[in-house]
Amino acid sequence: MSKQIKFELPESAMPKFWYNIAADLPHPPMPPLNPGTAQPISPDDLAPLFPMAVIEQEVSMEREIEIPGPVRDILRQWRPSPLYRARRLEKALGTPAKIYYKNESVSPAGSHKPNTAVAQAFYNAEEGVKRITTETGAGQWGSSLALAGSMFGLDIDVFMVRVSYDQKPYRRAFMETFGAHCTASPSERTETGRAILAQDPDSSGSLGIAISEAVELAAQRDDTKYSLGSVLNHVLLHQTIIGEEAIAQMDMADDYPDVVIACTGGGSNFAGIAFPFLGRKLRGEQDVEVVAVEPSACPSLTKGAYAYDFGDTGHLTPLVKMHTLGSTFVPPGFHSGGLRYHGMAPLVSQVVAEGLARPTSYHQVECFDAGVQFAKAEGIVPAPESTHAIKGAIVEALKCKESGEAKTILFNLSGHGYFDMQAYMDYAAGKLKDYAYPDQEVAMALAGLPVVDEAAIGAGG
Amino acid sequence: MSKQIKFELPESAMPKFWYNIAADLPHPPMPPLNPGTAQPISPDDLAPLFPMAVIEQEVSMEREIEIPGPVRDILRQWRPSPLYRARRLEKALGTPAKIYYKNESVSPAGSHKPNTAVAQAFYNAEEGVKRITTETGAGQWGSSLALAGSMFGLDIDVFMVRVSYDQKPYRRAFMETFGAHCTASPSERTETGRAILAQDPDSSGSLGIAISEAVELAAQRDDTKYSLGSVLNHVLLHQTIIGEEAIAQMDMADDYPDVVIACTGGGSNFAGIAFPFLGRKLRGEQDVEVVAVEPSACPSLTKGAYAYDFGDTGHLTPLVKMHTLGSTFVPPGFHSGGLRYHGMAPLVSQVVAEGLARPTSYHQVECFDAGVQFAKAEGIVPAPESTHAIKGAIVEALKCKESGEAKTILFNLSGHGYFDMQAYMDYAAGKLKDYAYPDQEVAMALAGLPVVDEAAIGAGG
Repeated sequence: MSKQIKFELPESAMPKFWYNIAADLPHPPMPPLNPGTAQPISPDDLAPLFPMAVIEQEVSMEREIEIPGPVRDILRQWRPSPLYRARRLEKALGTPAKIYYKNESVSPAGSHKPNTAVAQAFYNAEEGVKRITTETGAGQWGSSLALAGSMFGLDIDVFMVRVSYDQKPYRRAFMETFGAHCTASPSERTETGRAILAQDPDSSGSLGIAISEAVELAAQRDDTKYSLGSVLNHVLLHQTIIGEEAIAQMDMADDYPDVVIACTGGGSNFAGIAFPFLGRKLRGEQDVEVVAVEPSACPSLTKGAYAYDFGDTGHLTPLVKMHTLGSTFVPPGFHSGGLRYHGMAPLVSQVVAEGLARPTSYHQVECFDAGVQFAKAEGIVPAPESTHAIKGAIVEALKCKESGEAKTILFNLSGHGYFDMQAYMDYAAGKLKDYAYPDQEVAMALAGLPVVDEAAIGAGG
Repeated sequence: MSKQIKFELPESAMPKFWYNIAADLPHPPMPPLNPGTAQPISPDDLAPLFPMAVIEQEVSMEREIEIPGPVRDILRQWRPSPLYRARRLEKALGTPAKIYYKNESVSPAGSHKPNTAVAQAFYNAEEGVKRITTETGAGQWGSSLALAGSMFGLDIDVFMVRVSYDQKPYRRAFMETFGAHCTASPSERTETGRAILAQDPDSSGSLGIAISEAVELAAQRDDTKYSLGSVLNHVLLHQTIIGEEAIAQMDMADDYPDVVIACTGGGSNFAGIAFPFLGRKLRGEQDVEVVAVEPSACPSLTKGAYAYDFGDTGHLTPLVKMHTLGSTFVPPGFHSGGLRYHGMAPLVSQVVAEGLARPTSYHQVECFDAGVQFAKAEGIVPAPESTHAIKGAIVEALKCKESGEAKTILFNLSGHGYFDMQAYMDYAAGKLKDYAYPDQEVAMALAGLPVVDEAAIGAGG
């Protein structure tokens, strides 16, 4: 038996196309709506914020969209990312299951986020944009866009949630090393920021506020656009290179997953690995089970409503159809910043609603237990977000131990935890809490939203 | 022209042998001496501290030493490490030179150190050892041994210099995540520690003190040995897998380096990449220029004496022939913890003394300048130690720009800087100082050492 651990594709085999699941879904995606009229928005409505190439991808129904050469030339710096067989973890668990993981932590920013940051920076540069504004919470997304901006000569202007700005100076230093500009949000630089500071000079900020500040600045200047690191269709599209590579690598391993598992916050790393496999299932080529793992403290897929809601707290965005805990829901302070979003990517929501993926949730302490077990076996300290996927994979593997089934499990290791050691210290010190989600929150948060005639819109979609 | 960036070997092509340069050097290495008698020590003298397999490697004159299967099975988790062509850096510099780097930052601990940590843990486990003691400064070595220990079920007992223990809680958390035990040094656990604390309860510690504590504990118990992360012959041997891989990868790139460059602290990453190339030169197969880059603040190769000296501050070690600034020299507080050693590996010293490598030194600010330029071009934030190698490579590339020569330059990227962002913050804030080395130090530090009749010893070597 071969003991091979890494299945690596040469650069020459890097995928040349992203995969757009909208082409294969049983129903067309529900369009985003203007909150004033409750009618679909047009691509032109998005033009002040996004380059046209990205807007076209947002609404495209083409199955394959070509990855531009200059984007591939940068992605090849770390892609194709390796697929690992977790032999030592399998042994530690005593499972007959085969466990594989796609290692997205090898990117320069330490997660899957640069896959879309590089593409978005390219399209902006192509259309003459000089500056991109964005928000970041824990810092993964800001770091990725900072990196991408330095590759294309763009100014990157990051609004970092004040509490993270103060608590994570190293993430900030990382962004600044690549030449990005970091501002603590709320700031004096925008009307939104000034209004909030006037009310509460000590505001610790939120992702919702930071989004509003970044959007406000981008809308003001022609040479400036805005960029988002998850949720939107084009972001998910750019991440499908993960799954496209994984399909080829599973083939190298002469294997195919029975189950594909990823964590879900905004949905981009989940979509990245799962959608290409789901595409094969939808086209009748090969069956697969897909599991989305979310934190019990912010369980949009398992406890949220599937409804039209705002994407941000400040209600500046269009209404989108998604699993949501309500745009006013503020998740408690658990350690996976990337999973603290009240909603879910519309395409991921649709996939779950159509029964193509099974959502599940775990508490943070059991996820860290899984993450430390993974680290000791595989040598990689995972990002707190990624421990949710690991937990999901271990649960599947232990089911196999009980049943004797030798399933093939594939999960996405979305990032490493080198910048998250405080979370591991809190875990080791027994300071981490599990948070229960208050069930009545959703109904309260959705009360008062515009009435949407979904049947009429769906027919026009 | 191919735009290939990464040259990756499959696991099946991972080297099966380490390369021992002692077999090819014009003169045999000078033996370590008993400081009492000034006569060579015997392997048995080292038996309380090291497993016998390691001691045999320490004195071996065999050219090739087989890498055990269980060691290869762990190394394959991240090896062969990729060789990169630094195309974007070349472009940023406008040089006709081709720049390649071997990326050792991909290891789970973020540097080349696990290459020997895994081997040493294996040999100790094979001989029934239950616990390994060691010291660590900034934490790179402790992290690597912690990782290796978790793979072989060994208890790892790390004495971490007090000032780093307090300043780098995240490095400590990393070691503890892998199950290692961390003690701030000086500690109450050893006679050495207690004596120092009795004199100075607030002692911030030093690498010399931490070594003494680790050695003291190891010598007391049969089930406990001691491990060192650089300097010794067997450590350098285990690192030669870097250069062996690089030779095969340069061949994949249809190229061969005119110059090989690495930073030098204890000498292990330098030896790792340079010795296999020097072996080819020594055997008349292919010429190469080798450059060792050290910090101006701790310039053992460029300003030290080549003499018999103690390896530690506490004078517990044998005398070894090396380039040294004197065992009492305490380097100033610059940011490359891994380069703050008063001496140099005896084999590296000999290579320099025999004219096979050219030593050079740079100040830390110019090294950080180079490191940030590298990060912006290549996307990887380098460890402060590695910025020295980058500086050396950029100097060579700019010489080519002036002369028009299209040299091929290869350097070793020994590690990443994810745990060193404080250094980058200090750099960005203009807080980093350049330190001049005081020339009179060496003579003072070497005064009073035992008189060694080198001619007599050399003849018997």
